[in-house]
Amino acid sequence: MGKNAICSLKCADGSARRGEITVAHGTFQTPAFMPVGTAGPVKALTCEQLEECGVEIVLSNSYHLYLRPGHDVIKNQGGLAAFTGWNKPTLTDSGGYQVFSLKDISKVSDDGVEFQSHIDGSRHLFTPERVMDIQRAIGADIIMIFDQCVAYPADEQTAAEAVHRTYEWARRCQCRFAELAALDNAIGQHLFGIVQGSTYKNLRSQSAEQIVALDFDGNAIGGLSVGESKAEMEDILAHTIELLPADKPRYLMGVGYPEDILMAVSYGVDMFDCVLPTRNARTGMVFTSTGPLVYRNAEFANDSRPLDESCDCAVCRRYSRAYLRHLFNQSEITGLILATYHSVWFYQQLMRDIRQAIEERRFEDFRREFLSRYQQV
Amino acid sequence: MGKNAICSLKCADGSARRGEITVAHGTFQTPAFMPVGTAGPVKALTCEQLEECGVEIVLSNSYHLYLRPGHDVIKNQGGLAAFTGWNKPTLTDSGGYQVFSLKDISKVSDDGVEFQSHIDGSRHLFTPERVMDIQRAIGADIIMIFDQCVAYPADEQTAAEAVHRTYEWARRCQCRFAELAALDNAIGQHLFGIVQGSTYKNLRSQSAEQIVALDFDGNAIGGLSVGESKAEMEDILAHTIELLPADKPRYLMGVGYPEDILMAVSYGVDMFDCVLPTRNARTGMVFTSTGPLVYRNAEFANDSRPLDESCDCAVCRRYSRAYLRHLFNQSEITGLILATYHSVWFYQQLMRDIRQAIEERRFEDFRREFLSRYQQV
Repeated sequence: MGKNAICSLKCADGSARRGEITVAHGTFQTPAFMPVGTAGPVKALTCEQLEECGVEIVLSNSYHLYLRPGHDVIKNQGGLAAFTGWNKPTLTDSGGYQVFSLKDISKVSDDGVEFQSHIDGSRHLFTPERVMDIQRAIGADIIMIFDQCVAYPADEQTAAEAVHRTYEWARRCQCRFAELAALDNAIGQHLFGIVQGSTYKNLRSQSAEQIVALDFDGNAIGGLSVGESKAEMEDILAHTIELLPADKPRYLMGVGYPEDILMAVSYGVDMFDCVLPTRNARTGMVFTSTGPLVYRNAEFANDSRPLDESCDCAVCRRYSRAYLRHLFNQSEITGLILATYHSVWFYQQLMRDIRQAIEERRFEDFRREFLSRYQQV
Repeated sequence: MGKNAICSLKCADGSARRGEITVAHGTFQTPAFMPVGTAGPVKALTCEQLEECGVEIVLSNSYHLYLRPGHDVIKNQGGLAAFTGWNKPTLTDSGGYQVFSLKDISKVSDDGVEFQSHIDGSRHLFTPERVMDIQRAIGADIIMIFDQCVAYPADEQTAAEAVHRTYEWARRCQCRFAELAALDNAIGQHLFGIVQGSTYKNLRSQSAEQIVALDFDGNAIGGLSVGESKAEMEDILAHTIELLPADKPRYLMGVGYPEDILMAVSYGVDMFDCVLPTRNARTGMVFTSTGPLVYRNAEFANDSRPLDESCDCAVCRRYSRAYLRHLFNQSEITGLILATYHSVWFYQQLMRDIRQAIEERRFEDFRREFLSRYQQV
């Protein structure tokens, strides 16, 4: 492994890997699921509740933190960990996904992306260098290169241009990151590359070769779970992950549903993030061992069972579907807390079970058993 | 004491009293402050968090629970404690304050109050008997008579009519309560009377005499903290509390600010409730040992101090004003949780300090010291 070896593999079961990753604010076990704390907090939870759920690393969005409260405020407050109270591992995305999503109010050039704030319409420019400066100021343990993620579907030329740009930007990010580290490396950040290429295997191969050659501390697969079918996602993932070095963390960005995570772990993915468990909880749906449960539905008005009868979380031990449904109807904040808590716990429990199954060399059995109970949406 | 002695007095310091009250779901220490869980939950907190804060009894609103989810749903779910997960003492108000607040959409007669739901405009009738039935179904440990609370200021005739009606309704409530208890007293509820009379001492005397004669399990003072001055509140409280038996709980409804609670404790009040700590927390203000703090203000954008530098709560041990202010700006639910948690803790800590001061016969010293640090709004 390279100069910044952060990943220690404990064992494997087929291609599924069990390891741990150590960064400045601690160690987290892999495969890991990172709940999303867009602007700092995982919405509707406290750090104490995240810890109770067994969360070991949180992902935040540079784009949002840059706009509010501003990366300088966070730097002044001692960095993301001190600012948010989450004194454990963190990762920030680069903002690339967000600014490219602002299609109508952004302009892309080789230099970077000029965009308007979704808050006040003010104009901003993200260049690879600027994005490194911002993520440096925010101070997460793991930061991501500024990449170009194309929408799905993308024609091959658009996808090829994005691969090219992602590579050019990756080099610029790496240069700036090295400059910043040379000035002051007390913070001990790690930079991950991102492989793009949409659904084109030739482009994925090209992007993986380019990104891997830059020898980042970890490698991510971007541009999946953006609208393609599950079969297509699996096909591209299977193709791409083979090209990523086995001795570095492999991170599948923005994925996903429990069944997607199980699939991706089987190919050797170590890290995941997704807004699904938290966002869906706030709109009336939680994940359970028998599948998604739309707890806001009228059918649960008198249902005294917990959200998930097989769950040991603090919410399932104390509160009923009838109560959760009432709280949702009443727009009670407490309901959003309880639903989010359960879903975050559920995802962490899934990862705990996955890790144990890999250690016991029975991952595929576990996956099969899980899916036999779990009704996908 | 009467047939249902629930109040045990431990000691006194001047008129300030230190005791405990035992009901079906447990014992709570007095003087006690009850946070308000209007529709079940104390807004933005879980039961676990209430317990961490040291809350021992929660007040809920019959009016809201009647409209949603409906008292029958709560009864089917095993009553308020089982439904909300708060398996500790509870109290419901009668809904009188709420339906009388719906001035433009309610009609008052001797029989009761006809009103329109604030949710869907549907028409409903609250009579004293109906209100007893509803509170019985909800199943709180302590329930309140259906009283008439007049607005401030009220002319003497209006106030006198409300006193008369409150008495008539108190008798009807007591009859129905006895009927319901005779049918099934497994639930072990207690009924409190309410003294009205606005700011007229003669009417307060009359109301107190009437209500006390009915020998309820406890006596409340209603119709204060509705707009009158602090001096007027103290004057009426001092006059009224003298007329309430010392061997039963005395509950000052809807009060209030920390300075009001200290004042009222000095006259011998045992129980309080108020939405202030929770509602204000959600709109950007928390209570601290140096006075209210409008944490949403821009001046705190870079303030790394906790909300209250003298506070030991989980929020003050971990999070800064800068972070709370950021969360408020971002409309983050987590910010509402943290602010509410601190304020609920602050009120419970105040009550713990008050109780200890009474035990140590230094209540007035404590009150003076507290107020010397505390800048009132």
